[in-house]
Amino acid sequence: MSVKITDLARQLNLSVATISKALKDSHEISSETKQRVFELAKKLNYTPNPYASGLRKRSSKTIAVVLPEVADSFFSLAINGIESIAHDKGYHVLIYLTHESFEREEAILKEFQSGRVDGILISVSGETCAGNHIKEVIAAGMPVVFFDRICEDVETAKIVTDDFESGYNATSHLLKAGCKKIVYLSTSSSLSINNKRMAGYMQALTDNGLANTIDIISCASDDEGNYQIIHDLLKSIHRPDGLIASVEKLTTPIYLACREINLSIPEKLKVISFTNLQAALILTPTLTTVTQPAFEMGKAAASLLFKGIEKKNFDLSKEKIVIPSVLAERSSTTSQKI
Amino acid sequence: MSVKITDLARQLNLSVATISKALKDSHEISSETKQRVFELAKKLNYTPNPYASGLRKRSSKTIAVVLPEVADSFFSLAINGIESIAHDKGYHVLIYLTHESFEREEAILKEFQSGRVDGILISVSGETCAGNHIKEVIAAGMPVVFFDRICEDVETAKIVTDDFESGYNATSHLLKAGCKKIVYLSTSSSLSINNKRMAGYMQALTDNGLANTIDIISCASDDEGNYQIIHDLLKSIHRPDGLIASVEKLTTPIYLACREINLSIPEKLKVISFTNLQAALILTPTLTTVTQPAFEMGKAAASLLFKGIEKKNFDLSKEKIVIPSVLAERSSTTSQKI
Repeated sequence: MSVKITDLARQLNLSVATISKALKDSHEISSETKQRVFELAKKLNYTPNPYASGLRKRSSKTIAVVLPEVADSFFSLAINGIESIAHDKGYHVLIYLTHESFEREEAILKEFQSGRVDGILISVSGETCAGNHIKEVIAAGMPVVFFDRICEDVETAKIVTDDFESGYNATSHLLKAGCKKIVYLSTSSSLSINNKRMAGYMQALTDNGLANTIDIISCASDDEGNYQIIHDLLKSIHRPDGLIASVEKLTTPIYLACREINLSIPEKLKVISFTNLQAALILTPTLTTVTQPAFEMGKAAASLLFKGIEKKNFDLSKEKIVIPSVLAERSSTTSQKI
Repeated sequence: MSVKITDLARQLNLSVATISKALKDSHEISSETKQRVFELAKKLNYTPNPYASGLRKRSSKTIAVVLPEVADSFFSLAINGIESIAHDKGYHVLIYLTHESFEREEAILKEFQSGRVDGILISVSGETCAGNHIKEVIAAGMPVVFFDRICEDVETAKIVTDDFESGYNATSHLLKAGCKKIVYLSTSSSLSINNKRMAGYMQALTDNGLANTIDIISCASDDEGNYQIIHDLLKSIHRPDGLIASVEKLTTPIYLACREINLSIPEKLKVISFTNLQAALILTPTLTTVTQPAFEMGKAAASLLFKGIEKKNFDLSKEKIVIPSVLAERSSTTSQKI
């Protein structure tokens, strides 16, 4: 039989309201009383029932973060940004991983309809083409904020970076460094971020009269597959002199393949990656990166979500924040004769 | 006042059992009835109480994973191992981050006493010295399995790797490569894994008559601090000729500092890191690593936890599984004249 707040009240001869306030460390209660309450609560091993009190307050003091994976440094940094805000607000953060599966994402969202959490931050899976499962949760009154990977068709707050401009700038940077044949290594074609980066790439080539050189290669979902695709591309007689890696996990296979076939970066091939990987600084050559403001995006998304949770009339559907990415020029794109 | 299932039953003149089945989309209920139930539930904004139904079934179909961080590749791989098992069992996985804070870990564990999850996998924070907060949860009947970072004083299942042997082997490897002065870069001194790796290091030096060269340096909690400590160490006249990095995050500062002060690896300094970082393969020189079986440890921990959840009489306290780490020899420790 678990200990209830009424048991504490009876034993200490105090009202339930006083006990409740004391447990919340309210300034209305004297420190002496608080100490008595804490001591008895500890002695009896009392734990508040967060869900029951959540029902009363219509709050579980918990937010959910739905992500494709944590092995990508963007997401681990974004989580830290989210938690920095949630911690200040006294909220728990639950992390749910979809492993890039739409089916898993749908099942997770379904669970939220039962009120387990007070709000949701989501970056959709690579398989997610439409957002009906998210619309349903929003229709049920749940505050939802997208970050990074969004569904265009869902009307709710979105925190994104300037993916089109980043793709455009990455391409322009390679062109200025002397590249004539730039390949864009693409991930999931249903992802908004990939498509915008790719559109930026195509626009930059078009603006430079090089629309005929547009060359997009779809990558695999596993490391082995990616290595094979990149290796074959770089061995072919039509090999590119510039590569844009649209996601972090392509970096290792690119460097491995170049070493394997003895293709020197940046002399024979210039490389730029979308990544937050710290190791970019210690690769040889150091890697030119487009770095997303992961921590800031996480913070901004969490801040907006709490506005949506705390202010009943706050309209999340009109909110959109764009935080620019940064192109950090390093040795992998240094201009030299090719 | 929240709407209850009994309110729906009364208003529709149906039994609670019928409403409950209708809400679960049971084939026993006609679609016409289901529609009436759904419409009223929607109108009244009814949400089932998962916690109450969890209490009834004594199951939330959810397990918790409590971790210090996700920015370390060991943990992101371990999560994938855990989820591979949980997914097959039809369980949700909630990830809680302690950010290496004992206070946060304690608060998270406290929350579990209210029955939010069916079982807990935990790798403790760097500040955690004793496991009373974990013992309390176990005493309340919750199955708990440690993985990697354990509390020796808590009697429950533990999935670990051979940290002592790994520390011993890493040191022996550096000695064979010709090192005379090996420094062990240590993290939190309350962590079991760090202390075992360190004990292995000391034993290997002692066995080789080099006990007088034992040199352990405590690292900082932030990247800047670590860079400074390593930079100063390598600039000093007593600089070592071998380094053992006991955690992944020390790798980047070591390579950065060596480049900064023009100290070539492996000629002047040999380096071995405890890491699962894929980039070890593309660093120059490639990095010799002790790689923990992260995915396998996650799988083993989750499998044991489900035994504890599903079999009432299964005694977790006697279980301990040791999965060996692998030393992968690469160029950062190649034997050469120093």
